[in-house]
Amino acid sequence: MRIALAQINPTIGALTGNTKKVVEYYDRARAGGADIVVFSELTLSGYPPKDLLLYNDFVAREKEIITDKILPLTAQNSPAIIIGTSHHEGGKLYNTAALLEEGRIKSVHRKTLLPNYDVFDEKRYFTSFMERKVELLDDLPTAITICEDIWNDCEFFAEPIHNVDPLEILFGQGARLLLNLSASPYNLGKHKLREELLPFLAKKYSSGIIYLNQVGGNDELIFDGSSLVYNDRGELIYRAAAFEEELFFIESEDLYKPAAVVQPPDKDDIDTVYQTLSLGVKDYVHKTGFKKVVLGLSGGVDSAVVAALATDAIGPENVFGIMMPSPYSSDHSVEDAVRLAENLGINYQVVHIDRPFAAYIGLLNETNEATGDLAEENLQARIRGNIVMHYSNREGYLALATGNKSELAVGYCTLYGDMSGGLAVIADLPKMMVYELAGHLNLIHGREIIPGRTISKAPSAELRPDQKDEDSLPPYKILDPILHYYIEENMSAEAIINKGFEAKTVQEVIYMVDRSEFKRRQAAPGLRVTTRSFGMGRRMPIARSYDY
Amino acid sequence: MRIALAQINPTIGALTGNTKKVVEYYDRARAGGADIVVFSELTLSGYPPKDLLLYNDFVAREKEIITDKILPLTAQNSPAIIIGTSHHEGGKLYNTAALLEEGRIKSVHRKTLLPNYDVFDEKRYFTSFMERKVELLDDLPTAITICEDIWNDCEFFAEPIHNVDPLEILFGQGARLLLNLSASPYNLGKHKLREELLPFLAKKYSSGIIYLNQVGGNDELIFDGSSLVYNDRGELIYRAAAFEEELFFIESEDLYKPAAVVQPPDKDDIDTVYQTLSLGVKDYVHKTGFKKVVLGLSGGVDSAVVAALATDAIGPENVFGIMMPSPYSSDHSVEDAVRLAENLGINYQVVHIDRPFAAYIGLLNETNEATGDLAEENLQARIRGNIVMHYSNREGYLALATGNKSELAVGYCTLYGDMSGGLAVIADLPKMMVYELAGHLNLIHGREIIPGRTISKAPSAELRPDQKDEDSLPPYKILDPILHYYIEENMSAEAIINKGFEAKTVQEVIYMVDRSEFKRRQAAPGLRVTTRSFGMGRRMPIARSYDY
Repeated sequence: MRIALAQINPTIGALTGNTKKVVEYYDRARAGGADIVVFSELTLSGYPPKDLLLYNDFVAREKEIITDKILPLTAQNSPAIIIGTSHHEGGKLYNTAALLEEGRIKSVHRKTLLPNYDVFDEKRYFTSFMERKVELLDDLPTAITICEDIWNDCEFFAEPIHNVDPLEILFGQGARLLLNLSASPYNLGKHKLREELLPFLAKKYSSGIIYLNQVGGNDELIFDGSSLVYNDRGELIYRAAAFEEELFFIESEDLYKPAAVVQPPDKDDIDTVYQTLSLGVKDYVHKTGFKKVVLGLSGGVDSAVVAALATDAIGPENVFGIMMPSPYSSDHSVEDAVRLAENLGINYQVVHIDRPFAAYIGLLNETNEATGDLAEENLQARIRGNIVMHYSNREGYLALATGNKSELAVGYCTLYGDMSGGLAVIADLPKMMVYELAGHLNLIHGREIIPGRTISKAPSAELRPDQKDEDSLPPYKILDPILHYYIEENMSAEAIINKGFEAKTVQEVIYMVDRSEFKRRQAAPGLRVTTRSFGMGRRMPIARSYDY
Repeated sequence: MRIALAQINPTIGALTGNTKKVVEYYDRARAGGADIVVFSELTLSGYPPKDLLLYNDFVAREKEIITDKILPLTAQNSPAIIIGTSHHEGGKLYNTAALLEEGRIKSVHRKTLLPNYDVFDEKRYFTSFMERKVELLDDLPTAITICEDIWNDCEFFAEPIHNVDPLEILFGQGARLLLNLSASPYNLGKHKLREELLPFLAKKYSSGIIYLNQVGGNDELIFDGSSLVYNDRGELIYRAAAFEEELFFIESEDLYKPAAVVQPPDKDDIDTVYQTLSLGVKDYVHKTGFKKVVLGLSGGVDSAVVAALATDAIGPENVFGIMMPSPYSSDHSVEDAVRLAENLGINYQVVHIDRPFAAYIGLLNETNEATGDLAEENLQARIRGNIVMHYSNREGYLALATGNKSELAVGYCTLYGDMSGGLAVIADLPKMMVYELAGHLNLIHGREIIPGRTISKAPSAELRPDQKDEDSLPPYKILDPILHYYIEENMSAEAIINKGFEAKTVQEVIYMVDRSEFKRRQAAPGLRVTTRSFGMGRRMPIARSYDY
C-alpha cells in the first residue's frame, strides 16, 4: 500500500482556501500513485479553530465541504482519504478522523483524549469518544488516532494525564499500524520527546507508526511539521521537512523491514528556535493580510534580533526600522541601530522624540522641566510606541513588539509603550536566549548581522541618564533560571531557594512577576517556544492577594 | 437545625485573609446559635483561582489551613462547617465541599459537573467525581452539591450540557435538602433563570433548597450573592442581599412548611446592571491595591457613565477626570464634561492636546501640516491615552477605560488610545444600554448627574471636523441587535439577515467584528454583564481567513 502524507499549512477558518489546498495535495498524491492520502488534525478549519467552532454555521459548512468537495474525489477507484474534521453527532461535537473511500464515508474515528491544559481548550468544544475500532487499510489493521490519543502511555510517562489509553484498546484489537493525525505545536524539547515516545510505542506494540503533523504559525502557536515514520522495530524510516509543507509517500511494506540507514535525532536547539520564530513571524504577517512590518530599533539586542528574524522571514524590502533617540539615549544607540539596518539591508528612519516629549512636559509639569520620574520614563516609551503605531496605521505595516520574556515576566516594560505592536516576536525568549539567538544569527549568515557592540554592551532601557537593566533587576543569568522555575515549572519560592538562589532575590523576582500580570493581560500575542509562554497557556487572576 | 449561611466576598489567592474572614463569620454564626455554618464554593482561594491552582504549594497551603485553622474550630461541640475547597486525592484535584465536624473531616463531596464553557475552565484544573452520597445533617438527608452540579436537569433544560445529573443520584438516595455551594457570576437574566430553576427543583424533588452564592468582583466576573432559600413547595423563603456580604440563618424546619409571605421575583434590569458594575469597579480598584481612579472625560455619554459609576462605587474624592480637547473638539465637549464633574463633585483638570499633537505632526509630516487621515485620528486618541496613563503612573491612580461593547465589537476605538486603562468598566455594555444606564443614573440620584446634552447629542469621537459615529457605523439601534445576535447568540450572517436586517449592513458589521479581534486581544479586562462578553468568554483566532 502506498500511503501519501500531506503535511500542509492551513489558515485558520479558511474553509475554502484550505479545501483548495487539500484538493491540490490530493491530486499530486494521486499522480504519485498513492492508494490513500492522509491529512492532519482538523485540516479544513486549521488547528486551533477556537471559538469559530461555536458558530454553528461554521461546523455545518465544514460538513458540506466534506460532502460536496472532498468525498467525490474518492469515487471510482481514486485513492481513499483520511482527513481530520469536526464532526457533529447526537448534539455533540467530535474531533474526528474520517476515512473517505469510493465516494462515501467509510468510518469515523473520534478523538478520545482531549487536551485541556496549557494552551489547549479541547474540552470547551469537543466530547471525548471512548469506543475505538481498528480499521483495515488494504488488509493492514490500523489504529487511526488523533494527536493526544497517543500521548498517555503509562510506561513512558511517570504520571499519565488521562485515565484511559486508546492504544491499549486499539492494539488489543490487533492493530499493526499506528496512524496519528496531529496538530502539535513546537516547543523546545518537543523534537526530543517525540523521537523518544514514537520509537518506544513502535517497539512496545511491534507496530509501524506514521505520525503526521500540521505545519505553520497560527497566532502564538507554531506547528513544525517534522512528521515522522517508524518501522515496527522503532527505527526512523522518514522524517518530513521541518517548518515547511511537504507531500511524502510511504510504502507500508517498508514499515515491517529494517531501516536502510540509521538517522541521527532531529535537532532541538537554538536553530530550531530560530526556524520556529521565522515561520511564526512569516505566517502571522501573511495570514493577517499584511506584507510589511515596522519596528523600533533601539540599538539593543532585542529589537536587533526581531529585525533580523523579520528580515529573514519576509525579506529586507518588507521591514522598516525606526530609531527614536531621546535626550537620554547614548551616542552608540543610533549608530548601532543604523549599522544593524545596513547589515540587514532594510529601510529605516531616525525620529527624535525630544519635541513631543517637551510638549508633554510643558503640559504636565508646572515647572516645564522634566523630573525624571518613572512616569516620564513610561512617557518616553509611549511616545515611541505612538510613532511606531503611526507608521503602522498610515502605511499599513504590521507593528512588531520587541520585548523578551524576562522583561515581560518582571514587568520591566511599558504598557502602550515598548509593548505596542500586533505581534510580540520574542515574548517567549528569556533574555539569555535572545543573546544566544543573536550569536546564532551572525553564525548562520556567516557575517555580522547583529552588531558586536549591540551584543556586548550592558542592556539598558535608556530612559534616564546612565540607566542599566541591572540597576533594577538581578543579572539575567540569575533572573532567567528563577523565572524558568517559577513560570515554567510552577515551583514555589521555597523550592527555588532550595535550588541555590538567594532568598531575597527569589522573593523580589516573584513579587515582580505577580504584580505585572495586568501588563501581560494587555500584551500582544507572543510566539511560543518554551513549554509555558504567557498568554493562553498561563491564565492568572489580576485582582488578587499574595498572602498565602 | 439552625443553619448559618456565609455569603462572603473573598479575594482571589488571599488564603490568609480569606481564612480570617471565614473565622470571623464562623464566630458570628456560633454566637447566633448555629448548628452548622456553610461557606460558598472554593471559599479559601476565592473563585476563580485560575492558574494559581497549578502552583502545587498553593493547593498544599490551602490544605494546611483547613487542617490547622479551620478544623480545630469545630472541636468540642462547636458548630460544624461545610466549606468549599480544592482537594487533592490520588494525584487528581477535586472541587470539593468538605464537612468538618468535631475537629475532623467527616466527609467530602466532590463536584461532578465541571463547567468548561464561556468564561469557565474547570476541566483545566479539576477532575469530575461521579460517586455522590447523601449526607445526614442532624438526621436530615442532604444533597451537598457544588454550583454546576444542579444545572443539568433534563426536564428544565431543553439541551442539558452534561451526560449525568447528580441530583437524580442524590434524590434517588432519599435526599430531602439540597444544599448548593456556588460561585455563580451575574449576567443579565441570571436572577430570572435561578428563580425559575430552583423552585422547579424544589417542587420536582419535594425538597428544601439552600443556594449559597459567593459575592464580589474578581477581574471580569461579578458575583452577586443573592443567595436563595426555597421550601419543599418551591416557595421562596429567603433571599440574601445582592452585591453585599451577609450572614443569615435558616431553621431547617421552615423548609417544610408553607412560606409566611409570597415574595416578588428579584429584579434583573438596568438597576441590577448598575449594581453589578458598581461592585465590579469597587472590588477591582481595592483588590488591586488602588484607592483612586483617573479617566478621560470627553463630554460624551460613555466616559460620563463610567465616571458616575466610579463615583458611586468609591466616592467622588477618589475619582479624577481629565478633559483633553483637541482642535477638533466641539465647544460643548469641555463644557459638558465640566458640568458632569461638578455634578459628581469630582476633581478634574483640562489638558489641551494641541501642543503634543503639533509636535508629532512636525516630526511625522514633511509639510508640518496635519493631513486629517485615520492615522492622525489614532494619534490624537493615543496622546489622550498617554496623558491618562501619565496621571496613573505619576499619582498611582488606576486608569479606567471608557469604551462600550458596541465600539469594541466593531473596532471603533484606538488601541493604546481610548482603550488605555487597567479596567474597562462598560466594555460589555452595548451603546444603547449605556444610554439606558445614563438615564437610570439620573433617576436614582433624583437629579442631573449625566448632563442632558451629553445624553441627547449625536455620539462622536471628535477626531476630525464634524465627525459623527453614524458616518462610520450603522445607527446603534440597528448595530446593537446585530452584534447581539452575532456575538451572544453565535448566529450566522444568513440567520441574522433572516431576522429582518439589511444584508449589506449585517455583512459589514460582521466584517468589522472579525477584523478587530487584534484590538480586543489587547484590551483591558472588561466587567461582564451579558451572557457573552469579550475576554476569556470569547476566544477567537486573530490570524485567520474569512472565506467560509
